[in-house]
Amino acid sequence: IETRPDAGRERRKGAPEVIFGETKETAQIIAMAHGLLAGTGRAIISRLRTDSLEEVKAAFQGYTVRTRDAARAMVIYGPEFVPNNTGGHVGVISAGTSDIPVAEEAAVIVEEMGCRVTCIYDVGVAGLHRLVTPLRDLFADNVDAIIVAAGMDGALPSVVAGLAPVPVIGLPTSIGYGMGGKGVAALLSMLQTCAPGLSVVNIDNGVGAGITAALIANRVAQARERQSQ
Amino acid sequence: IETRPDAGRERRKGAPEVIFGETKETAQIIAMAHGLLAGTGRAIISRLRTDSLEEVKAAFQGYTVRTRDAARAMVIYGPEFVPNNTGGHVGVISAGTSDIPVAEEAAVIVEEMGCRVTCIYDVGVAGLHRLVTPLRDLFADNVDAIIVAAGMDGALPSVVAGLAPVPVIGLPTSIGYGMGGKGVAALLSMLQTCAPGLSVVNIDNGVGAGITAALIANRVAQARERQSQ
Amino acid sequence: IETRPDAGRERRKGAPEVIFGETKETAQIIAMAHGLLAGTGRAIISRLRTDSLEEVKAAFQGYTVRTRDAARAMVIYGPEFVPNNTGGHVGVISAGTSDIPVAEEAAVIVEEMGCRVTCIYDVGVAGLHRLVTPLRDLFADNVDAIIVAAGMDGALPSVVAGLAPVPVIGLPTSIGYGMGGKGVAALLSMLQTCAPGLSVVNIDNGVGAGITAALIANRVAQARERQSQ
Amino acid sequence: IETRPDAGRERRKGAPEVIFGETKETAQIIAMAHGLLAGTGRAIISRLRTDSLEEVKAAFQGYTVRTRDAARAMVIYGPEFVPNNTGGHVGVISAGTSDIPVAEEAAVIVEEMGCRVTCIYDVGVAGLHRLVTPLRDLFADNVDAIIVAAGMDGALPSVVAGLAPVPVIGLPTSIGYGMGGKGVAALLSMLQTCAPGLSVVNIDNGVGAGITAALIANRVAQARERQSQ
Amino acid sequence: IETRPDAGRERRKGAPEVIFGETKETAQIIAMAHGLLAGTGRAIISRLRTDSLEEVKAAFQGYTVRTRDAARAMVIYGPEFVPNNTGGHVGVISAGTSDIPVAEEAAVIVEEMGCRVTCIYDVGVAGLHRLVTPLRDLFADNVDAIIVAAGMDGALPSVVAGLAPVPVIGLPTSIGYGMGGKGVAALLSMLQTCAPGLSVVNIDNGVGAGITAALIANRVAQARERQSQ
Amino acid sequence: IETRPDAGRERRKGAPEVIFGETKETAQIIAMAHGLLAGTGRAIISRLRTDSLEEVKAAFQGYTVRTRDAARAMVIYGPEFVPNNTGGHVGVISAGTSDIPVAEEAAVIVEEMGCRVTCIYDVGVAGLHRLVTPLRDLFADNVDAIIVAAGMDGALPSVVAGLAPVPVIGLPTSIGYGMGGKGVAALLSMLQTCAPGLSVVNIDNGVGAGITAALIANRVAQARERQSQ
Amino acid sequence: IETRPDAGRERRKGAPEVIFGETKETAQIIAMAHGLLAGTGRAIISRLRTDSLEEVKAAFQGYTVRTRDAARAMVIYGPEFVPNNTGGHVGVISAGTSDIPVAEEAAVIVEEMGCRVTCIYDVGVAGLHRLVTPLRDLFADNVDAIIVAAGMDGALPSVVAGLAPVPVIGLPTSIGYGMGGKGVAALLSMLQTCAPGLSVVNIDNGVGAGITAALIANRVAQARERQSQ
Amino acid sequence: IETRPDAGRERRKGAPEVIFGETKETAQIIAMAHGLLAGTGRAIISRLRTDSLEEVKAAFQGYTVRTRDAARAMVIYGPEFVPNNTGGHVGVISAGTSDIPVAEEAAVIVEEMGCRVTCIYDVGVAGLHRLVTPLRDLFADNVDAIIVAAGMDGALPSVVAGLAPVPVIGLPTSIGYGMGGKGVAALLSMLQTCAPGLSVVNIDNGVGAGITAALIANRVAQARERQSQ
Ligand SMILES: Nc1ncnc2c1ncn2[C@@H]1O[C@H](COP(=O)(O)O)[C@@H](O)[C@H]1O
Ligand SMILES: Nc1ncnc2c1ncn2[C@@H]1O[C@H](COP(=O)(O)O)[C@@H](O)[C@H]1O
Ligand SMILES: Nc1ncnc2c1ncn2[C@@H]1O[C@H](COP(=O)(O)O)[C@@H](O)[C@H]1O
Ligand SMILES: Nc1ncnc2c1ncn2[C@@H]1O[C@H](COP(=O)(O)O)[C@@H](O)[C@H]1O
Ligand SMILES: [Mg+2]
Ligand SMILES: [Mg+2]
Ligand SMILES: [Mg+2]
Ligand SMILES: [Mg+2]
Ligand SMILES: [Mg+2]
Ligand SMILES: [Mg+2]
Ligand SMILES: [Mg+2]
Ligand SMILES: [Mg+2]
Repeated sequence: IETRPDAGRERRKGAPEVIFGETKETAQIIAMAHGLLAGTGRAIISRLRTDSLEEVKAAFQGYTVRTRDAARAMVIYGPEFVPNNTGGHVGVISAGTSDIPVAEEAAVIVEEMGCRVTCIYDVGVAGLHRLVTPLRDLFADNVDAIIVAAGMDGALPSVVAGLAPVPVIGLPTSIGYGMGGKGVAALLSMLQTCAPGLSVVNIDNGVGAGITAALIANRVAQARERQSQ
Repeated sequence: IETRPDAGRERRKGAPEVIFGETKETAQIIAMAHGLLAGTGRAIISRLRTDSLEEVKAAFQGYTVRTRDAARAMVIYGPEFVPNNTGGHVGVISAGTSDIPVAEEAAVIVEEMGCRVTCIYDVGVAGLHRLVTPLRDLFADNVDAIIVAAGMDGALPSVVAGLAPVPVIGLPTSIGYGMGGKGVAALLSMLQTCAPGLSVVNIDNGVGAGITAALIANRVAQARERQSQ
Repeated sequence: IETRPDAGRERRKGAPEVIFGETKETAQIIAMAHGLLAGTGRAIISRLRTDSLEEVKAAFQGYTVRTRDAARAMVIYGPEFVPNNTGGHVGVISAGTSDIPVAEEAAVIVEEMGCRVTCIYDVGVAGLHRLVTPLRDLFADNVDAIIVAAGMDGALPSVVAGLAPVPVIGLPTSIGYGMGGKGVAALLSMLQTCAPGLSVVNIDNGVGAGITAALIANRVAQARERQSQ
Repeated sequence: IETRPDAGRERRKGAPEVIFGETKETAQIIAMAHGLLAGTGRAIISRLRTDSLEEVKAAFQGYTVRTRDAARAMVIYGPEFVPNNTGGHVGVISAGTSDIPVAEEAAVIVEEMGCRVTCIYDVGVAGLHRLVTPLRDLFADNVDAIIVAAGMDGALPSVVAGLAPVPVIGLPTSIGYGMGGKGVAALLSMLQTCAPGLSVVNIDNGVGAGITAALIANRVAQARERQSQ
Repeated sequence: IETRPDAGRERRKGAPEVIFGETKETAQIIAMAHGLLAGTGRAIISRLRTDSLEEVKAAFQGYTVRTRDAARAMVIYGPEFVPNNTGGHVGVISAGTSDIPVAEEAAVIVEEMGCRVTCIYDVGVAGLHRLVTPLRDLFADNVDAIIVAAGMDGALPSVVAGLAPVPVIGLPTSIGYGMGGKGVAALLSMLQTCAPGLSVVNIDNGVGAGITAALIANRVAQARERQSQ
Repeated sequence: IETRPDAGRERRKGAPEVIFGETKETAQIIAMAHGLLAGTGRAIISRLRTDSLEEVKAAFQGYTVRTRDAARAMVIYGPEFVPNNTGGHVGVISAGTSDIPVAEEAAVIVEEMGCRVTCIYDVGVAGLHRLVTPLRDLFADNVDAIIVAAGMDGALPSVVAGLAPVPVIGLPTSIGYGMGGKGVAALLSMLQTCAPGLSVVNIDNGVGAGITAALIANRVAQARERQSQ
Repeated sequence: IETRPDAGRERRKGAPEVIFGETKETAQIIAMAHGLLAGTGRAIISRLRTDSLEEVKAAFQGYTVRTRDAARAMVIYGPEFVPNNTGGHVGVISAGTSDIPVAEEAAVIVEEMGCRVTCIYDVGVAGLHRLVTPLRDLFADNVDAIIVAAGMDGALPSVVAGLAPVPVIGLPTSIGYGMGGKGVAALLSMLQTCAPGLSVVNIDNGVGAGITAALIANRVAQARERQSQ
Repeated sequence: IETRPDAGRERRKGAPEVIFGETKETAQIIAMAHGLLAGTGRAIISRLRTDSLEEVKAAFQGYTVRTRDAARAMVIYGPEFVPNNTGGHVGVISAGTSDIPVAEEAAVIVEEMGCRVTCIYDVGVAGLHRLVTPLRDLFADNVDAIIVAAGMDGALPSVVAGLAPVPVIGLPTSIGYGMGGKGVAALLSMLQTCAPGLSVVNIDNGVGAGITAALIANRVAQARERQSQ
């Protein structure tokens, strides 16, 4: 079966192609990973089903393989791959414990795009006192963009966007049951935010949030670099 | 056309019958108000359409009439009506300026049920610093229940419920446009709250929020009274 | 993986932190329970998955452990925990047999917050004659707040709120299939109630209903106590 | 513009064609009414817009014209039309005052199909004591089918169906605002009924409810008649 | 755990209580069945889960047990139960092969309420020629009410209601995928019918459709009987 | 304000650019019409608001202007425009009287694309006997594609697609009120059709249905022509 | 259990009956396949569940059986079946790798209706450069109709319809998660297309898309043929 | 009536407070504008209702007032206000003519935050050739972020994000009718994008899109500046 992984995306967009593992057969995933390794020296896979994980690992035994378990993510590096370090800095915040896997998916992507990541987890609005100090530290540490992952009421991104002097990306998670559950209320609340400077991606789309935040941070970092030369 | 306004509700429930003006003809409203005045000495009308307002006023010229304009509410008192003062205390908070009319509808009802009301308006999550001092004062003033009116993201009730030592009633308002607009995101976010002790009423239902809060406050006040005798 | 269970909530809010078991790994649940036991002497867990139950029990063998099976709830008490008895009284009513598990979740929380609970189950509107006597007894027994759990048509909370002289909390359950199933019709019908003094929590949110009812009952009881001293 | 009003329906179905006035131009309405008068000796029009009313009346000056104002319905009788009296008996109940217009639309149709109608209005679940006596009288008066019109929570039809020994037709009305408003909660609650023997028609579809109830009553009446000959 | 099966329903309503098996534990089902057998001599169970089936059968070995497999329905008769034969006649039509189980659920109930049933299956609008002859035969055989089960487009009930001289009950089934799938389009299309005399029950609610049809047929049959004496 | 009407579409696609009048200011409409007249010799405007109609007419006094009132459509021909006649043949059927305006919008487009149109109106499923003869004639007259416009239950397109030997395009209209109203049930029912060969366009999208049908008919006609030379 | 597979459809419609395997029991599938083989010499089964596959194959051992694995489709040919070759040509395009199974389902049907198929897979809008050359080739190869399968954003069909001189059928797939997932956004985006000449079928309805495209192509091919004789 | 406009936001966030005119009374708007002028020297008002426009202008006669008509936006400058020029560069693209007002709202905000804006309008996917050249020029002109406004199918932002090397903000507009109309399909399609680096704001939220884009551009510009000193 024919697939056309977009190896040129990295050069064109400054963002890597990511293989979405959930709805693909293991054989397809392996074939696409080979394609990307040949083209760019690295293959990133998200939402790897547990039944694919070991098979994919086995298929790339000669390679350096890094997994981020909570996020069900895997990165395979070819022998010549040289990680770059852009100097960008992204904050990743989660409202609850259950939002951590999606936050981690975003963090993996941000790192693979060469940024430094600071994570602050389980600081939701039910006890806002937990948020104050780590957030102040993050601002002081010259962060370029902040991702806020939240399910249920989705209130935390609005609170952070009311305070932060940088762009905030709302990342709703599918946590929550009943009416507005599975992330629906969280997403809608973020779309309806009365705080300025909050844009959103879809429910559980850690990859999308990570790419957007890293694109911002890398462009800022590039401006810093270019001038400092 | 026959109507059966429930004059016995006040005795049975401790909450007055309220005439919902929006979908009734002016003649019906006047007839029902006469029925309630005869039965309980007072008639409360909510959502009075502008085209009904003057006509209703004219029909009750000998009576004391009180209007709360933002809320489109009217109360008509019979000559023998004696307001009672229960000693209950309810806080009414609004997130934005546009939520004030709905908050005011709740305040009217709470007052008519004999409670003291403290209003704090325009203190939403886009600038949480505005909330801190008035909220602390409210707790210190021995409030029995708090109503929080919010549209758009509906995040404020969750923040207040995370802090308040008394029951909080979330009152979503129909403010907001686009996906989740007209109060939908606000209501869903409140239903999905991760803060404890928040129950909700429907979008724009100031009457319902007011009755619930006053029922709580009056039961507490009654216990205080009874014992102090 | 870092979690920050909010041990201070009990002091601040008068309501305990509750660990939501459904979307957490067993190891996370055990870690959080240890955190809460250390902070407050007690850990309450809701929606414990069957695969977690035995493991969690095993991890707390030296402790007193109480489970409420229908509700999939567990409470772990530290050696020094002294249950308090506030004097509050809450009624918990269910419309059908299938609504009982959610009603029980509410009952557990109400009890852990120190209130007396009276349960009346399977008295829905398809045969209202079953409701009359037990409800009259409940009013006579000086109940402070009533929770009404109902799925399908969700009509019972409106009927009870039309009669009860205390605040009623509507607790929709995910019982029902087809259009409006899984609790959607029940929740919407409660939000649209034409009876006064009914506020609601989300579908299957027994924890939320229990906390709200107990906050009300405890505030009333506290007023009774304070004066009687 | 060509229209094909179905004059044969009455013979085929035992139910008259009804012209839906709301989305038709006045000229179309008049043309269709002439068609039906020619074919069946009678034309029934529902949802007549106020701007059409006088024009239509003027166009049929030689005819007997009957209007039912609350329902915005009009019936035009040709000179030779002989009303028939089937002996069927239908009850029409409304929950609130605002539901009366839709209930009246159903009543008009039932009468035009030759049945006797008993109306009981404003007896919703917020004060169920208002319902008991009139309902008992209705059963005693050998009613063949009952229509229950309700908006907002839509709880009344389930209560009635729990008690009535005849088929009940739930008629949701578009009364109610906020989530589940405009009759949505009412319809869903009726579809989710836990009471037996309740079927429903769409929101505000008084015509549909009336035809179904009258078809039932007429078939029963016909059986009564046929045998008594 | 307490349950209150409504054994008096049969006398009050002329319709039996039916135990909904899907969301109940096997032990609860058996207890409720014993309750109904004691009260009425018969227990009807719908939506029996496969894991409950054998256990329930085993618990009632001395009894006559009848199962209708496609419908997952079971009826248990006590030794003294005497089936009655009312003389009512109900037609049950299905649009597709996949709608048959739901149609059969309706048929079981109709039979247990003492009516004769005629089934016509797999005659949907994709090939209407299949419908013509059996439908004409049904009318000729003096049918009192017709149930039409349909999923997907839900068009068949409107077609039948356009032709039938008796009340038609639309029974949407959860067949169909994609937008409007799981019976949603079918239900909505029936609610929006432009044919007269069609009322509906919820998706897959064969029990509800059966009770309504049998209530109609039995009332007609009773009129026939009474007069013929 | 800059606009870029796509005059090249006709050459590229074989379908004309159509100006959507409803959300444009009159000045914009006139400017775009001039652009299209210059590019292709003709300008087609749909959904012309009544307040724009006269102004637009006035602006093109020297031109041949054709309006189709029911459809709120206007076509302006430049002096050199030569209508072409492709030989394609399209049927346009409407279920009810109220669906005619949308059907007419489709008919205008089909004609402007050079096809012959046969219209059959008001033949919905509530009385299917009205459909039989005209449909048989249409098949006999060698029709290439059929558009079926229907609101409410949307059942007619499925019935026609069950019979027609050519592609059928379902055109849902926004006729109908209550749940599934405004064309929602009609669209969903068409998407869920169990008849083969039915594809759909959005609610009230007469333009889209017309273009698709004419593209089909013209391709067939072209094949006929090409060979006959 | 009685089924009535519509063997006459092929003659009447020019489109074969297709057995939908997903919601049928294996025994039903085999019985219906025998019916179709007897009537038309061929049986096509779609959405065959894995648990049915081998059983069905075993039941038709003497027959030629063709499976298309990605599409979970099977075709069984009787001994006398002669495939016909109409000369029609249909393009089938997929946006992503995950959309291929649904695209393949469409392709099977198109082939069984006698057309030639050209497939172009994995050319979505995230990298449009992949689309240009194969699309130009398709136009040059005299394609009669194009099916475009796309999940997630559903943007590709609009892009193709903006370019193609033939009818385009949008085939949304259930790929995508979060808000608008499972094909909902894809379908809605296609319904809202601003490109001319795009009609759609329901999510994952490869059979429906295939029949529509083949009906178009075959009618064109027939016109070509007829004239060339 | 008390309001608390957040004059400190500009210093804290780098983004101005914006008065949402649509749901406020004219008197409230004027009062809030005075508050902001006193605090920051400038007041920005969006969605000014036509009935407020002249009154507000009249109230600020001594001030410099700038209106952007398509966007219904107004900016009032105090005498000492000094516009700053950050060096940031933002692209604003619209798919259709009808999307321009929302695009203009975004452009106003971007300009008021000190950035340069390049607008490219009416280049949607129905004719993608119109997009190619202006987009290439935009990349060459060192743009920092791109806003893409689109209604109906919402396909353009995905196409642009597939090509652009900078963050893209999707801005759905409420253009479009029928299913998925009023911007719903557009928003969902953007949320479901398969292109990397696209985040979104709510339907018609030009202010939100503008603030996010300007925050990005200003941070990049600041980095450029800081280094160049
Ligand atoms: N977890 C994820 N969430 C959202 N998008 C993803 C994810 N993983 C991969 N993608 C993107 O989705 C596209 C999927 O296309 P395909 O792999 O062809 O089905 C890829 O180009 C990725 O950029
Ligand atoms: N603004 C309001 N919102 C919600 N409920 C109301 C409002 N005003 C009155 N009600 C209640 O709604 C019921 C309306 O019933 P009716 O007046 O009979 O249509 C009354 O009994 C009131 O308790
Ligand atoms: N069954 C339940 N339903 C609703 N809320 C719950 C339930 N159990 C726990 N919670 C609350 O949900 C919050 C979940 O946050 P976390 O455990 O950090 O994901 C806790 O603070 C609890 O107060
Ligand atoms: N399959 C079914 N569909 C709809 N209603 C049912 C069904 N089976 C039983 N019921 C009714 O639903 C009610 C369920 O209440 P409970 O058994 O108390 O949860 C019973 O009184 C039955 O009348
Ligand atoms: Mg937590
Ligand atoms: Mg404000
Ligand atoms: Mg029960
Ligand atoms: Mg009333
Ligand atoms: Mg079939
Ligand atoms: Mg008609
Ligand atoms: Mg791909
Ligand atoms: Mg344009």
